[in-house]
Amino acid sequence: MATLCHTDTWIQDCFFDYYTSKILVIRSRKVGTLNRFTQALVIAYVIGYVCVLKKGYQDTDTVLSSVTTKVKGIALTNTTELGERIWDVADYIIPPQEDGSFFVLTNMIITPNQTQSKCAEVSHYGRHSVRTGRCVNYNDTVKSCEVLSWCPLEKIVEPPNPPLLADAENFTVLIKNNIRYPKFNFNKRNILPNINSSYLTQCVFSRKTDPDCPIFRLKDIVEEAEEDFQTMAVHGGVMGVQIRWDCDLDMPQSWCVPRYTFRRLDNKDPENNVAPGYNFRFAKYYKDSDGTETRTLIKGYGIRFDVLVFGQAGKFNIIPTLLNIGAGLALLGLVNVICDWIVLTIMTRKHHYKEQKYTYVDDFGLVSI
Amino acid sequence: MATLCHTDTWIQDCFFDYYTSKILVIRSRKVGTLNRFTQALVIAYVIGYVCVLKKGYQDTDTVLSSVTTKVKGIALTNTTELGERIWDVADYIIPPQEDGSFFVLTNMIITPNQTQSKCAEVSHYGRHSVRTGRCVNYNDTVKSCEVLSWCPLEKIVEPPNPPLLADAENFTVLIKNNIRYPKFNFNKRNILPNINSSYLTQCVFSRKTDPDCPIFRLKDIVEEAEEDFQTMAVHGGVMGVQIRWDCDLDMPQSWCVPRYTFRRLDNKDPENNVAPGYNFRFAKYYKDSDGTETRTLIKGYGIRFDVLVFGQAGKFNIIPTLLNIGAGLALLGLVNVICDWIVLTIMTRKHHYKEQKYTYVDDFGLVSI
Amino acid sequence: MATLCHTDTWIQDCFFDYYTSKILVIRSRKVGTLNRFTQALVIAYVIGYVCVLKKGYQDTDTVLSSVTTKVKGIALTNTTELGERIWDVADYIIPPQEDGSFFVLTNMIITPNQTQSKCAEVSHYGRHSVRTGRCVNYNDTVKSCEVLSWCPLEKIVEPPNPPLLADAENFTVLIKNNIRYPKFNFNKRNILPNINSSYLTQCVFSRKTDPDCPIFRLKDIVEEAEEDFQTMAVHGGVMGVQIRWDCDLDMPQSWCVPRYTFRRLDNKDPENNVAPGYNFRFAKYYKDSDGTETRTLIKGYGIRFDVLVFGQAGKFNIIPTLLNIGAGLALLGLVNVICDWIVLTIMTRKHHYKEQKYTYVDDFGLVSI
Repeated sequence: MATLCHTDTWIQDCFFDYYTSKILVIRSRKVGTLNRFTQALVIAYVIGYVCVLKKGYQDTDTVLSSVTTKVKGIALTNTTELGERIWDVADYIIPPQEDGSFFVLTNMIITPNQTQSKCAEVSHYGRHSVRTGRCVNYNDTVKSCEVLSWCPLEKIVEPPNPPLLADAENFTVLIKNNIRYPKFNFNKRNILPNINSSYLTQCVFSRKTDPDCPIFRLKDIVEEAEEDFQTMAVHGGVMGVQIRWDCDLDMPQSWCVPRYTFRRLDNKDPENNVAPGYNFRFAKYYKDSDGTETRTLIKGYGIRFDVLVFGQAGKFNIIPTLLNIGAGLALLGLVNVICDWIVLTIMTRKHHYKEQKYTYVDDFGLVSI
Repeated sequence: MATLCHTDTWIQDCFFDYYTSKILVIRSRKVGTLNRFTQALVIAYVIGYVCVLKKGYQDTDTVLSSVTTKVKGIALTNTTELGERIWDVADYIIPPQEDGSFFVLTNMIITPNQTQSKCAEVSHYGRHSVRTGRCVNYNDTVKSCEVLSWCPLEKIVEPPNPPLLADAENFTVLIKNNIRYPKFNFNKRNILPNINSSYLTQCVFSRKTDPDCPIFRLKDIVEEAEEDFQTMAVHGGVMGVQIRWDCDLDMPQSWCVPRYTFRRLDNKDPENNVAPGYNFRFAKYYKDSDGTETRTLIKGYGIRFDVLVFGQAGKFNIIPTLLNIGAGLALLGLVNVICDWIVLTIMTRKHHYKEQKYTYVDDFGLVSI
Repeated sequence: MATLCHTDTWIQDCFFDYYTSKILVIRSRKVGTLNRFTQALVIAYVIGYVCVLKKGYQDTDTVLSSVTTKVKGIALTNTTELGERIWDVADYIIPPQEDGSFFVLTNMIITPNQTQSKCAEVSHYGRHSVRTGRCVNYNDTVKSCEVLSWCPLEKIVEPPNPPLLADAENFTVLIKNNIRYPKFNFNKRNILPNINSSYLTQCVFSRKTDPDCPIFRLKDIVEEAEEDFQTMAVHGGVMGVQIRWDCDLDMPQSWCVPRYTFRRLDNKDPENNVAPGYNFRFAKYYKDSDGTETRTLIKGYGIRFDVLVFGQAGKFNIIPTLLNIGAGLALLGLVNVICDWIVLTIMTRKHHYKEQKYTYVDDFGLVSI
């Protein structure tokens, strides 16, 4: 440690001096055993835990991701209002494409043939319309305020149960995920190289039999999160499709594979929840033959699937390696401090050791204690 | 430090030797004070700053987030073109659902009844259409090139001021945010456990009185970012709703709460800005009774709200702790280097100390200086 | 290192004692050279590599980003079905606005005038409809199952080649990107302060001549990723527009500029690929004069552009600085261990040095070897 040189003719006399501590060797089994044991502990920690388990020798990077999804499936509904009706992808995916997320319509309250006009207010809905100031018949027995709005107003009803598009549980979704670790210039897709087109046309993800298939049945996703699809479909909800890419880039690239987990993201607890489930209103606009605009208002309930991609890649890097080795060496130095303390305060022959270890000097010369 | 053994009968003689430095104790108030003071500084830095303030003993993780939003409110417009008209959520949220972002229409230029046909070019607009090569009357006095386009063409006008949907300032939005720190398997929602449904149905966020309410009045969001809603509504803009989740997971989970801040994200500086504000064109498509397609083109100005979720969670972990302790110990070693330098070069009795500290040996034996 | 005090009258006698190792100075050119050389290596590593190259003295933060995009351009198509037709932004951007991503329609298969009814199944499409159980004429010679569906069914054909909106290659997109490094409270936009409005109205990004212009021609984006726009436009695809913000915040802020790169994100390899390219179905809904709903189904092929913003900012911080200095000092201590080993086991005069360096003591007193 003490690497300072103090003579006047510095370079020639002193630059090549090698400074090394004078050492007292204590031949005591007790201290020696303690010392070796503590050293072994520290070395085991640095090598075993920091290096092997936690990969302290690696630099890390977080994932950069792009996701596309493609849902397939068809649903049949049979209601008094609409009759028999087929729903395909163009009907139930809203909006038709999104980045890393898709919404599947599972239930709805439809209010057809709305026009901008005046009608009798529905009690609750009042604050969301503009009152004209007149009082009109709501039905044969009840009167209410007249409002300016899209009339007829949407009815305040609970969504149908069972849900209209109960068939949605059999829809499948192909999730294509492309990731990049920019620091290591590493790209990979979740459609692994060993998967061929014919397998992809017919496989469905299953944790046991097809863990690499990127096609998921919606019901399976919901059930893996320990939810019931039909119950969730009534009021809607938000599901997280979590793709974890934890990659050790010192290993073969084929070991770097995605792992899929599923989790419900919205709060289904009715206690602490306003607007439970997931729904939003949208409209289809039409024009009558006389040019007046009408719309069909749909309060759509459904499940939004958010694809959440995360993960960390590690690769050998000299800086974290030496940081950890340096910290380990410093800890080895700590071992000496502890052993010194034991030798010099606890052991019976401590005075004997002390005498040998320490030389005392004060401002006037050597002292003996 | 020097833990090497050099005898031949290694294990029995040498393995249990304990090596400890021989120490020179200098009984000098000056050096001692300096030494203790510097040591105190280093220890104060390691404990006070690294451990307490910066939580150097913690491993950290960044947030994974899912956001849903639900806007409420109704606006009344009264224009010569459209008459009195009510705008509800299905009219002014475009697209009807997005992931972590929502757009509120506040102003627009409407071009109704466009059909694919030919019409006289508007001067500026020329390069965005296809010319037929003929020259036709633009109005009674001016002629211009005929173009193939959706006719009539959109007029080149400034958006209305005050904005059409000036009422949008009173719209409210419920933001539901679900976060996850995957490394610590920690989930939380921004609707905190102590909030009940009845509070949620009527509360509005206010930094002073309701800092935990996840329902925001649009005007409040804009004003917290020190912007004027009505001004911003004319040309549109982009607002950032920043949710910060800084969590110390060694503390009770109830201390981990979101903090909301608001910031304008687009550039309102007219100097260094093309296409100021935020707008986009979209169309509603209709079919006439004779089957020709017409559309209503809307250049929609509005405010896009991006919900930006960020934050860092920390939790005790042995590796960063020992890394910092190790580095601290190494710095304590540096204290000795500094004190040695002072003792051996500055102090008056330096030669006295040097004599005691150093023993010189060259290739031929002991030397005395 | 050994800073423990052992006398009874602790404070007055011992607190101000300064403990310093007794040092053996070996005046040997060989060892001295080796020692200085190894020290120089370690110091060069710590200063040169860790500090200068890798900026180990900096704390880092990852970027928080908001992106808006605005596409410009017009396309002319001439098909037997639709005749001459102009496509503008409202027609080909779907949905009209997204967060950090935009989709440009380049090709399509249109199925007009679909209604909910019954028709003869197309062989492949069967599993996506609901069979009524009757057998009907598909054409003059072939019979097939009758299905309940949106009829007429979409034809199973390859998308047109060359693509319908081949003109899309000349569309331009303005990308506005606002970033924030929350830890350092640093904001910046990709429209740099030295860019003025008049430049922005006419510039187009070019790596050589206009590297700061945030307006990109779609063809240029695709070609920089070494793809052919017209080929990609037929089946669609996903392009990544990567914006890298690597900022050294110890330097002037004007040095912190975005760098643009482009990469194809979807897999064009036909071997290992189901549903190559990028397409989705959407519909425009109409109502006939008699109130029956019809729709035009569009299978839209196109290019989705994902704007991926990433980067890291660094700024001087005392903790990583001292961590690295501490680890460097610990490594310097390692140099001594290595030199000791050489001096005491390899050099010819090793016994001579050993005698001076070590003092042996066992449980009974001093020993001499």
